[in-house]
Amino acid sequence: MLSDTICAVATGPARGAVAVVRVSGPKSLEILNRVVSRARAWEPRHQYFCTLLDGAEILDKALVTYFAAPASFTGQDVVEFAVHGSDYIKGRLLEILCAYGARPAKRGEFSQRAFLNGKLDLIEAQGICDVIAAGNKAAHRLAMGSLEGKLSKRLQEMKQTLAELLAQIEVRLDDVDEEMAPLEGPFITQQIQIVLTHIQALAATFSVGRLIKDGLKVALVGVPNSGKSSLLNALVGFDRAIVTEAAGTTRDTVEEILDINGQKVILTDTAGIRDHAVDVAEQEGMRRSVRAMENADVIVWVTDGSLSLSAAEETLWQQIKQQNKRILLVRNKMDRTVAPLDLPADLKGLTPFAISCKTGQGVAELKNALVEQMTHAESEDGILISNLRHYEALLRAQTDLEEALLKVNSGGEFLAEHLRKALFYLQDLLGEVTPDDVLGIIFSKFCMGK
Amino acid sequence: MLSDTICAVATGPARGAVAVVRVSGPKSLEILNRVVSRARAWEPRHQYFCTLLDGAEILDKALVTYFAAPASFTGQDVVEFAVHGSDYIKGRLLEILCAYGARPAKRGEFSQRAFLNGKLDLIEAQGICDVIAAGNKAAHRLAMGSLEGKLSKRLQEMKQTLAELLAQIEVRLDDVDEEMAPLEGPFITQQIQIVLTHIQALAATFSVGRLIKDGLKVALVGVPNSGKSSLLNALVGFDRAIVTEAAGTTRDTVEEILDINGQKVILTDTAGIRDHAVDVAEQEGMRRSVRAMENADVIVWVTDGSLSLSAAEETLWQQIKQQNKRILLVRNKMDRTVAPLDLPADLKGLTPFAISCKTGQGVAELKNALVEQMTHAESEDGILISNLRHYEALLRAQTDLEEALLKVNSGGEFLAEHLRKALFYLQDLLGEVTPDDVLGIIFSKFCMGK
Repeated sequence: MLSDTICAVATGPARGAVAVVRVSGPKSLEILNRVVSRARAWEPRHQYFCTLLDGAEILDKALVTYFAAPASFTGQDVVEFAVHGSDYIKGRLLEILCAYGARPAKRGEFSQRAFLNGKLDLIEAQGICDVIAAGNKAAHRLAMGSLEGKLSKRLQEMKQTLAELLAQIEVRLDDVDEEMAPLEGPFITQQIQIVLTHIQALAATFSVGRLIKDGLKVALVGVPNSGKSSLLNALVGFDRAIVTEAAGTTRDTVEEILDINGQKVILTDTAGIRDHAVDVAEQEGMRRSVRAMENADVIVWVTDGSLSLSAAEETLWQQIKQQNKRILLVRNKMDRTVAPLDLPADLKGLTPFAISCKTGQGVAELKNALVEQMTHAESEDGILISNLRHYEALLRAQTDLEEALLKVNSGGEFLAEHLRKALFYLQDLLGEVTPDDVLGIIFSKFCMGK
Repeated sequence: MLSDTICAVATGPARGAVAVVRVSGPKSLEILNRVVSRARAWEPRHQYFCTLLDGAEILDKALVTYFAAPASFTGQDVVEFAVHGSDYIKGRLLEILCAYGARPAKRGEFSQRAFLNGKLDLIEAQGICDVIAAGNKAAHRLAMGSLEGKLSKRLQEMKQTLAELLAQIEVRLDDVDEEMAPLEGPFITQQIQIVLTHIQALAATFSVGRLIKDGLKVALVGVPNSGKSSLLNALVGFDRAIVTEAAGTTRDTVEEILDINGQKVILTDTAGIRDHAVDVAEQEGMRRSVRAMENADVIVWVTDGSLSLSAAEETLWQQIKQQNKRILLVRNKMDRTVAPLDLPADLKGLTPFAISCKTGQGVAELKNALVEQMTHAESEDGILISNLRHYEALLRAQTDLEEALLKVNSGGEFLAEHLRKALFYLQDLLGEVTPDDVLGIIFSKFCMGK
C-alpha cells in the first residue's frame, strides 16, 4: 500500500491566498518533473518558484518543494505545491497529478504512511489529529503532549521494564535444569508495581483529559423563573463573539460553546418551557431537564435566592440526586431580598454560589468552579490521556498486571502469560501490534490531506 | 507604510491539515528567531522543521521558510510558517507574532507591498485576485493571462510608442529656432493609429471578458406551462452535483450556477408563478420576467412547440423586444405533435431551438449556443480584459487619441496635451501614476493573506 503515489489538498476546503497540494510516493519526483515547465535537479527542501503546466497552458505559478525520502513527513519522496488558493487550481492540479500517475489520498493516508515508515507511532499520529481539531488552549496543550511523544516515551519505558522482566522469567521457564538462580518474588512484585502505578496514574487522568479534549458538558436546570436564561447570558457574557451554536442541537434546548480560562465548556439550557401552558410546561420541562442532566458532566441547579425552595424544586432535587453527577447549586437573584437558606438535609453538603445576573456578582466564581477540575488537572508528569482507545488499553493492561501480581509466587507460566498480555496492550497503544483493519479505521478518522 | 512588519494566515479560514502563516517586513527575521526554539542562520528558501514556542510551552512543530529581501513575493524579508491547521494554532501564532512586533495585515497588503516594491504592476496584482476567485477554466485562463503579464506587456509597448512620439513632438515645441526638421503628419498619424488600433481591440474584448469573469446571466422566460422549469432541470442535468444555489437569491426566483464548456452560466428562472391565482399570477409573472430580463445578458424565451403562440406570449414578446438583449427562442415539448411555426414578422429573424426536455433533444445545442460568444471569444492576441477599471481607462485613452488624430496638423501643443493624457491613462492602468487612496481601495478588495 506504500507503492502507489497519493495526492491531496492539505490546506482545507476554503478559498485562500495560498493552498498547499501534497504528493507522496515513489512517483513524486517523476510527476513533479512532468507538471513543471522545466525539469531540473531538485535540491531537497528548497522552495522553487515554478510554472505549473496544464497541457500547453499555464495552470499557475507556484512555490514547489521536494522532500527526498526518508527525510519527509511520510518517509517517502514528497512534493508540496504552494499554489494560489482557488477552487479551480486546486481541483485541476489534483486532476493533472492523477493523470500523471498519482491517485487521490484517503483521509489520514499521509499520516498512515508516516506511521508505516516508522516516522510516528500511533499515539503521535493521533496527536496530530487532535492538535488540528483543538479549538482552545487546554485541548491544544493536551494534544501537543501526545504529538511531542510524552505519552509514547512513558509507554516505551513501561514496555522496557515489562519486557526485561518477562525475558528474565521466560529464560528461567526454559531453564529445565534450573541452572539459573530463581528470581526473587519481591523483585518481580516491585517491577510489576512500578509499571502498574504508572498505568493507574495515566488511566486516572482520562476522566479529566476527556473533558479537556471534548469540552465540559454543563446542564443548566431549574424551575421556570429561577433565571436560567439570564444565567446562561451572564456566563456567555462578553465572550458571545466567540460563541457558536453547536450543530445538531434540538429545537427545545439551547447549546452555547464557550471558552472559560482556555477550557471548552458546552452549556445546555432547557429553553422554550415558557412557550407552553403551565401544566404542560412543568412536565415537559422536567423531561428535558432529565435528558440534559443525563448527557452532562456537571449539573448547575439554578434557584431563586429570593424565594424558599418550592415543591416543584423539591421534586427536581430528587431527579438531580439520582444522576450521581457533580452538582453546583446557584442561588440566583441575590440583588433582591435574600430568603433564608433552608436546604433539605441531603442538600446541606452543597455550598451555594450566591449570584446576581443583574450585577454580575458571583458569576466569575461560578465560571472558575466549573472548570476547576480541568484547570488544575492532576497529570502523570505532564501527561494526560483523552482517547477512549488509550484508556481501554490501559485498563486491560492494568487488569493483567493485577492478575500477574497474584501469580508472582505460583507458576511462572501463568505469570509470564499475564505479563505478555499487558505488554501486548502497551504495544497496541503504540500501534506496534495493531491489526491493519483497526489501523485503517483509526486513520480514516483523520482529516483530508494529513 | 513598508516599514512595519505584517502577518496573516494565507490559507483561508477553514481548518485543515496544514495552514500557512506569512510575515513580511523588516522585523521578519528577528521575530522568526524569537518564535523558534533555536535561533540560527537561515538559508533563504530552505524549509526547516522547527519547534515554535509559546512562552515556555510548545505551540507547534512546523516547517519554516525564510525568504530574504528582495527575492520574495513582497520584495521584503518574508517568513512563512506551515503549521498544523487548527484554529487555535493559527490564532495563537498571530498573537505571538504581534507580541514580537508584527501587526495584523490588512486585506491585500502583501500584494500591495509587492506592487510598491516593483515586484508586480497593478494589473498583475489584480490578476492574482482574479486567479484566486476564478471558479472555472475560462475565468481562470483569463485571470492567468493578467497575472502572466500579457496585458501589462501590451500596455508597456503602447506606452513606449506614445512616449517616443510625444518626446519627438515636445522637443520640437522647445525648438524655437526651428533647427529640427518638422515631424511628418502621416508619420504622427501612423504612430497614433498603431496604438489606437490596439486600444480599440482591447476595449472590444471587455464585453466578453466580463461575461467570462463574472458569468453569463441567462433569464429563462415564458408563460406558465411552457416548460421553463423542465428546461432549467434539463440544462442543469447531471451537472447538478456541482451546482450551488447563489447567495442572495430572492424567494420568487431560482438561480442555478452551472459550468457549460468550462464557462460560468447563471440561470434565473422566474419560479413560483403557479402558486398564485391565475390572473394575479400572469401579472406577477410578467413583473418578475421583466426584472430578470433587465439583469440578464441573454434571454431564453421558452414556448410550447405543440401550441401556437398565445395572446399572452405576444404580449411577452413585446416586453422581450424592448430589452434589446440577445434572445434565444426555444420551442419546447418537441416530443409532442408540433404546431406549425407561425412567428410574428419581427420575430422571423430568430432561428428557434427545437427542444424536448423529455428526450433531451436539442439541449446540448442550446447549451453550446448560450456560451458560444464566450467560447469563441475574439481576443487581442490572447488578451482579454474583464475589469471595469481597465475598460474605462482604455476608453479615456481612446478618446484622447481620437482627439489627437484631429490635431495632427494643427498646433503641436494641443496634440501633445492629448498624447500626454492618453499616456497617463495607460500609466494609471499599470498603477504607475495611481493615487495612494485609489490604490488603497483597489487592494482592500483582495483576499486576506494575499
